[in-house]
Amino acid sequence: MPSLLVVGTGLMGTSIGLAATAAGYDVRLDELDAHRLAMAEAVGAGHRWAPGERVDLAVVATTPAAVAPMIARLLHDDAAGVVTHVCSVQSKPEDDLESLDGLDGRFCGSHPVAGGERSGPGTATSTLFEGRPWLVCPTPVSTPSSVATVARLAADCGADVVEMSAAEHDRLLAVLSHLPQLVASALAATLTGLPDPQVALAGTGVRDTTRLADSSPGLWAEIVSANPAAVTSALQAFLSPLLELRDTLATADPTAVTAAVSQLVADGQAGRGRLTGKHGQQPVVWATVSVGVRDRAGQLAQLLADAATTGVNVEDIRVDHAPGAPTGIVELSVSPDGADRLHRGLSSRGWTATTTGAADPRT
Amino acid sequence: MPSLLVVGTGLMGTSIGLAATAAGYDVRLDELDAHRLAMAEAVGAGHRWAPGERVDLAVVATTPAAVAPMIARLLHDDAAGVVTHVCSVQSKPEDDLESLDGLDGRFCGSHPVAGGERSGPGTATSTLFEGRPWLVCPTPVSTPSSVATVARLAADCGADVVEMSAAEHDRLLAVLSHLPQLVASALAATLTGLPDPQVALAGTGVRDTTRLADSSPGLWAEIVSANPAAVTSALQAFLSPLLELRDTLATADPTAVTAAVSQLVADGQAGRGRLTGKHGQQPVVWATVSVGVRDRAGQLAQLLADAATTGVNVEDIRVDHAPGAPTGIVELSVSPDGADRLHRGLSSRGWTATTTGAADPRT
Repeated sequence: MPSLLVVGTGLMGTSIGLAATAAGYDVRLDELDAHRLAMAEAVGAGHRWAPGERVDLAVVATTPAAVAPMIARLLHDDAAGVVTHVCSVQSKPEDDLESLDGLDGRFCGSHPVAGGERSGPGTATSTLFEGRPWLVCPTPVSTPSSVATVARLAADCGADVVEMSAAEHDRLLAVLSHLPQLVASALAATLTGLPDPQVALAGTGVRDTTRLADSSPGLWAEIVSANPAAVTSALQAFLSPLLELRDTLATADPTAVTAAVSQLVADGQAGRGRLTGKHGQQPVVWATVSVGVRDRAGQLAQLLADAATTGVNVEDIRVDHAPGAPTGIVELSVSPDGADRLHRGLSSRGWTATTTGAADPRT
Repeated sequence: MPSLLVVGTGLMGTSIGLAATAAGYDVRLDELDAHRLAMAEAVGAGHRWAPGERVDLAVVATTPAAVAPMIARLLHDDAAGVVTHVCSVQSKPEDDLESLDGLDGRFCGSHPVAGGERSGPGTATSTLFEGRPWLVCPTPVSTPSSVATVARLAADCGADVVEMSAAEHDRLLAVLSHLPQLVASALAATLTGLPDPQVALAGTGVRDTTRLADSSPGLWAEIVSANPAAVTSALQAFLSPLLELRDTLATADPTAVTAAVSQLVADGQAGRGRLTGKHGQQPVVWATVSVGVRDRAGQLAQLLADAATTGVNVEDIRVDHAPGAPTGIVELSVSPDGADRLHRGLSSRGWTATTTGAADPRT
């Protein structure tokens, strides 16, 4: 199996080390912070790299700003046959590398779409990439063998390899990740002006819509600055109907407002409908069975155990804590065909349930 | 107990009928659609109203546009001692009522914050309002006894009564509900331009942020048109930092972009931090224990059953389906103090878990 050098042992680097070790790679680790390096070694992500040791593949998993200089150095020293990184932006590191005179066939960018808001080697796991997309982004000069080496690592880590150009990657992530982050933050920021007793009245809608706003300002500043063109374009596409709506509201013409809101919400439904399926499957609209529970350990387990006895597969769960009450509502998403069976099964075990979207609505 | 007339037997009206019947009210039902009326009667929400019968309290639970004329008629006919409605906008019905010459002390607006995206009498339940806020909005001329009658119905239905003016209500709901809806719709609409294989790469971030976009265009057109001033103001507050960011991105000054994004994301964190607590409690930051599961009936139940044996209370659950794989990640939110105990308990039962935000980080 190939030898692999992982530079930077945060969540990403350590998880790659763990997954590659499990797949039989001979993994070496490099990290400036001695404590983090020791931690990554201790959890079994690999052994420390001796400068000068040459590897088949190097993965740079540092913060975005440090990526290009590190890649340039590894290529210059011929420390690795192929070099990649794992940033959520691709064009910027490629451009930086070119200006460092380091762009050659041995480099190919990549981005495992996994990990979310977690960080640090203590949160790493060998299964982080299982079934996740790992985007592989060749430069115009990447050799086929470099691309294949990076793609093989991704596949060996359990990921689904999807190849696209750096520009395509950055446009896609701007829409799927960078824009939603900015929108969630701006929406959450509007809550700061409300008095406490009023904020406490917030329901699940605004909670879901602002969940991303928990993310780190520093990391996102770095990501957005590294992808300005694609973020600008996604932001403009997002803002355009809202600016139109603002102007329509200013005309105080109720017919025009009604038309503008109907169109906006209908367009949103169309976009949202494209999200609901899994990878490569038709989108599915789930039915929802909502159940009242007490807010205590064991209640959720009992509910799902009772649900399991009905044989209906629970596809998604949402827990909605009612403000000011020791009770909550748990929404179980199931296939429309199974909703009625689940509902009846839960009712017979004493749960209070309501159902929407069942194939055969209860009348 | 008082006699109650419910006009309109959709989800709201039928649920009020069920809850009030359970609380001992003598409930009468009125509904234009004979099928819906029969359904509401059949589920036990009350008995059909004979025109001319006088009640102590009437609740108008029709679509927003039909509310004011119906209230005016009930007051004109002296069919009820007190009349209220249950719309998610308050000033518009009040103004409409005034222009119909129907505003007097017997009217007091109200809005139970419950029900979400469900609709129809088949989804009604007597527990819909338990522990939920029910906003009571007196007009300047509502008599204290009218306000008390409406508040008593809300409390008898199990809701938490919160009194505020119609203007205050409309400003609050614009921020907590109407704006998030428009934002989620506009964000989801940006997905319509992506090719299918790319949309399939979407993660939980964009899914959570666009969940509200499933809502009905017609209903939302009616709500936003009825609350134009407050929606305009909330929309402007939301758009302002994003327009600034767009302009900053146009300057191509990386330092300025970094500063603008940091500020926006930090402001979002601050707003989001105010949401995480429950009614009247301090906000809590949960630790997250993430566990890999197979996507099958019973797995979730087994996981939560194993979690329950640790005695750690699971506060929230999120199921993240990995695209293209039969596995998924379940995120369990627990108190930072309990995260480590839960993690060890699950690991000892064979689950693969990672933890973030624990009080005592694993090293």
